[in-house]
Amino acid sequence: MSKISNIAIVGGTHGNEFSGIYLLKKWQQHPQLLARSSLSVETVFANPKAYGENKRYIDADLNRQFSASELADFSLANYEQSRAKVLHQQLGPKTNPNMDLVIDLHNTTSNMGPTLILLDQTPFDLQLAAYVKMLMPEAVVFLDEPEDDLANHRFLASCGRRGVLIEVGPQPQSVLRQDILEQMETMTGHILDFVDLHNQQQLPELPHSVEAFLYLDSIKLPLDEQGERIATVHSNVQDNDYQPINPGDPIFRTFTGEDICYEGDKTVYPAFINEAAYYDNDLAMSLLEKVRLELS
Amino acid sequence: MSKISNIAIVGGTHGNEFSGIYLLKKWQQHPQLLARSSLSVETVFANPKAYGENKRYIDADLNRQFSASELADFSLANYEQSRAKVLHQQLGPKTNPNMDLVIDLHNTTSNMGPTLILLDQTPFDLQLAAYVKMLMPEAVVFLDEPEDDLANHRFLASCGRRGVLIEVGPQPQSVLRQDILEQMETMTGHILDFVDLHNQQQLPELPHSVEAFLYLDSIKLPLDEQGERIATVHSNVQDNDYQPINPGDPIFRTFTGEDICYEGDKTVYPAFINEAAYYDNDLAMSLLEKVRLELS
Repeated sequence: MSKISNIAIVGGTHGNEFSGIYLLKKWQQHPQLLARSSLSVETVFANPKAYGENKRYIDADLNRQFSASELADFSLANYEQSRAKVLHQQLGPKTNPNMDLVIDLHNTTSNMGPTLILLDQTPFDLQLAAYVKMLMPEAVVFLDEPEDDLANHRFLASCGRRGVLIEVGPQPQSVLRQDILEQMETMTGHILDFVDLHNQQQLPELPHSVEAFLYLDSIKLPLDEQGERIATVHSNVQDNDYQPINPGDPIFRTFTGEDICYEGDKTVYPAFINEAAYYDNDLAMSLLEKVRLELS
Repeated sequence: MSKISNIAIVGGTHGNEFSGIYLLKKWQQHPQLLARSSLSVETVFANPKAYGENKRYIDADLNRQFSASELADFSLANYEQSRAKVLHQQLGPKTNPNMDLVIDLHNTTSNMGPTLILLDQTPFDLQLAAYVKMLMPEAVVFLDEPEDDLANHRFLASCGRRGVLIEVGPQPQSVLRQDILEQMETMTGHILDFVDLHNQQQLPELPHSVEAFLYLDSIKLPLDEQGERIATVHSNVQDNDYQPINPGDPIFRTFTGEDICYEGDKTVYPAFINEAAYYDNDLAMSLLEKVRLELS
């Protein structure tokens, strides 16, 4: 695998997810914290305007604007659509990226702990996941919806030759928690160390396989005929990200007190449970499959 | 004490505090849940425009606009200043209120559990607090900053002849949690029951005293000379609302890893720890004194 020379660490892709934004400030003041001998790191503040307004975004979710077709469509001109084209110039272009690796820092209101989200399942991605999980056993490896290739991916991190997200919660929007900040900083450090060891061909022996959760689907909150929500996420499920949901388990409680149960036919694992930002689309949670990835 | 005939239950004073807003919807569909024989209840959606934009407020915090002088100042004309004057017409006027009691429903991102906030310490308030705490031992009684009188109070609940707030957390902004919703509904029900029993002179024997927390002061996050935050709330304090902080205890952790300790000279009890909405003012937490209120 080729050397990873240029890394961008991106914070503030969502303006009210504070951990990455504060880490950028810290690293700009103390750049030696990011220094590794075999690589060069720059920090990028993706959506400063949304942060200034203490919002996730101004016009549209920035982290859904990076598919090749949207980047090529100059009629898409709102703030985040414009910002995406500029970030793609800076980090990409996807056809021949300036950045060998983009690390995009996110928070969730869900109890997902320190999660490493992979966009791809190349040997590099799997070795990275195994390394992070070896040094940080509480970390969770999350495999995003597979796309044909990164060119079609809508996430900011797909601008680089490789891209990953660090997603840490629970943290309310517009709040900074010490524990969450430290988890994000720790995982970022492990990724930089991994790349440096990879570049120097000095990786330690890694586990032969790593547990991960593969995105299957998202489920919506129950709505009435007028589109009004009639239930909340069930207390049995709330805060239990990555814990099994079995067929027949209650997953919602209606406002009049009835349970609504999971109707799938196999055990699934939820994440992004009751995430604040997903209310726009009435999403209740993502469902994932627990898998074991074999390192070849 | 005179009869309490007219009660307003107010939700959505802050547009991203969802529990009260959803309870209003539920009660409008099932008004029998609020019915008590000796009183009349109406529900009021205080800031629907902020809810529509999924924000705490449009122009200014609605729950700081209700002092007599601000209500009388017609040059204060932004959305919340205008809305406050209309709500004061509807619930007040303070000189001779339409409402004998205003119950204002709030959420916090802090781990405050179900908190009953009193604006006053009349025998009615203290009996109410003792009744709620007798039936809901996990409830906390919070005595707000004393004002000269309700006329000068800036909170919406001060529009009524009497006013209380129900403040329940932790719940991220723009999220609805089943557990928090149920705690708010339970406490509201106890308050209505109390008033009904009070009106009918059928109150049960109440405890002779009740534990409460009296607001003393708020403390700010440490800032540098440019006004930038240099620390977070310490992990030892985060989520430990109403747990003692002693002189010398660490309360902040700087971004470079040093502890900043509490410099007061007596034990205090924090609340609204790291509340998202208080970042505007760089507030880190409120400090309270634990007191015991004697029912005469």
